[in-house]
Amino acid sequence: MKGIRQLAEHLQISTGTVSRALNGKSDVNAETRRRVLAAAEDLGYVPNQAGRSLRQGASKTIGLVLNHGSSVGAGNENFFPLVIAGLQNVLSRHGLDLVLLLCPREENYDAFLRRMVARRLVDAMIITATRVKDPRFAFLTTAGMPFVSLGRSDSALPGNNWVDLDFEGIAERAVLRLFERGHRRIAIAAPASDVNLGKLFLEGYRAGLAKCGLQEEPDYIFYEQALEEGGYRVGEKLLASKKRPTAIVLNAELMSVGLYRRLGEAGLVPGRDLAVIAERESPVGRFLLPRLTCFRLDLDALGRMLAEMLLSNLPAFAEGYQDVPRNRIWPLELVEGESDPPLAAPD
Amino acid sequence: MKGIRQLAEHLQISTGTVSRALNGKSDVNAETRRRVLAAAEDLGYVPNQAGRSLRQGASKTIGLVLNHGSSVGAGNENFFPLVIAGLQNVLSRHGLDLVLLLCPREENYDAFLRRMVARRLVDAMIITATRVKDPRFAFLTTAGMPFVSLGRSDSALPGNNWVDLDFEGIAERAVLRLFERGHRRIAIAAPASDVNLGKLFLEGYRAGLAKCGLQEEPDYIFYEQALEEGGYRVGEKLLASKKRPTAIVLNAELMSVGLYRRLGEAGLVPGRDLAVIAERESPVGRFLLPRLTCFRLDLDALGRMLAEMLLSNLPAFAEGYQDVPRNRIWPLELVEGESDPPLAAPD
Repeated sequence: MKGIRQLAEHLQISTGTVSRALNGKSDVNAETRRRVLAAAEDLGYVPNQAGRSLRQGASKTIGLVLNHGSSVGAGNENFFPLVIAGLQNVLSRHGLDLVLLLCPREENYDAFLRRMVARRLVDAMIITATRVKDPRFAFLTTAGMPFVSLGRSDSALPGNNWVDLDFEGIAERAVLRLFERGHRRIAIAAPASDVNLGKLFLEGYRAGLAKCGLQEEPDYIFYEQALEEGGYRVGEKLLASKKRPTAIVLNAELMSVGLYRRLGEAGLVPGRDLAVIAERESPVGRFLLPRLTCFRLDLDALGRMLAEMLLSNLPAFAEGYQDVPRNRIWPLELVEGESDPPLAAPD
Repeated sequence: MKGIRQLAEHLQISTGTVSRALNGKSDVNAETRRRVLAAAEDLGYVPNQAGRSLRQGASKTIGLVLNHGSSVGAGNENFFPLVIAGLQNVLSRHGLDLVLLLCPREENYDAFLRRMVARRLVDAMIITATRVKDPRFAFLTTAGMPFVSLGRSDSALPGNNWVDLDFEGIAERAVLRLFERGHRRIAIAAPASDVNLGKLFLEGYRAGLAKCGLQEEPDYIFYEQALEEGGYRVGEKLLASKKRPTAIVLNAELMSVGLYRRLGEAGLVPGRDLAVIAERESPVGRFLLPRLTCFRLDLDALGRMLAEMLLSNLPAFAEGYQDVPRNRIWPLELVEGESDPPLAAPD
């Protein structure tokens, strides 16, 4: 357990420079900052608690860090509006306000986070859209900024708090359900990025195939953007398959809009000609014809859990939140739709 | 042009109380605040410029005020993500950061705004989702908080800056286009709330009917929520009509998802059996079958215009933005889809 003085001695630079580097100030050059953060991680730097408490009193504001293009929702039933409602419900009891910090399109997520920490707008942060390798965990830990993550990452440190959806579980259950319904050629759409949920979704898909004794077929894994257009391209690729899959698991429900259209253009009927299971229940999926089979979770409760985990990290509030778990994989329940009927003629 | 001292004399209360009321502090009772704000408006109170400039240096942060459930978008092509990109593009040139202030579900919009002004988190604000009567215009003007509005309101004061979409224009053009294509029974879906764009949309619809010499039919105006479920209910009502409309103009493209489903359930084909024109181009509308006919605008440019209007209000930046208009009605262009073919058998 080291402090700023030990870090400065170790690196042979001034305590002022170490402090400015840890606090993300812009007048420290990149190489020095990198060395300070690396040493802080190696030596197990622990930020001064008095300083933290002081800062926590400063703004009474919590920042929810979102990537540009994050679904903050159209309507009341989408992902972030309900998570935010749950967050605000708990935070407001303690006089804490939530602000959304949206990473600009042109800016690197990590640089944006460092800049937001340096700006001292907020007392604590919630990060989202975690990547497989995500330097934000080490940075926030080292900088002494209390935070909780919505999403896992290989880069999460043992002490970090996170909540994540059971992406691996839903992919596996989708495969098992389709298998039971007679499907043997089961495809999957996975994100074309390094977002961590993509890794989990594929792991669950593979676990499901293994349990069913099915061979993984590389041609049945479609890496596409988790949006309508990505779904349309999945449709294109499906139609071009030598041996077309009879079922697909989509990692995002919006993809189904584009997939349904592409099937319709080819005179195929979604559901009847291709079984579809999508990740999360949403209004679009509920009003598509056929209605999507998908998975449901209590988003408001998820938001409240995130807030409680965060409060358990803030000295001024921790006492009331001692029983809050450090990590949580959030369960989802299957919602039967019309999009995955049993295969008419199993082969 | 009055200052705090004149207001205090007029109301016979202390200058400190007047100042706290104008600044939205919570230790002023509601009745006193109401009296102070009313008098400030009546007497033409002008906030102290030095104070404003001082405050503008404080946070270098601009707040975008959103109602709970605002569409901050799923994906990159939806409304707020692109507007925000345009805003950030201009603001970042001046070292200003944008934070999103999301009104909690349980809180009144006006109370939320007062609280956010009192919190002094931001130097200036962008308000959205304006209502026909919207007390936020007078409150922000009186409080001396520089702001610009995305949306008009009957409550906007002559000096206020705003940008708004040409909602009346698109509703009118949709009616004219449907008339030219043989339709005489043209319905409209309008918001079931007091949001100002609903008023404008209906005005444009009525202007279009008048130009075509069509009588307004109260049964053809459907007040529903601007979401998938509202569209489904519009479908229910259409199917129950004594003399069913042959065409409909939707004030929100998401409604089409529910409307298409309801028509499909009844064995009707959207487009062929009911012509549909929806407000704004979006990925969902582009990938529905039939593709929606709708209206397009440059959302990034809209965001940049909002930022420039705001900067023209901030003494530290105004010099570079003297040519920015005070108000702007933003044009949209029609995008031909597949959802509004000419009527097969005009009656």
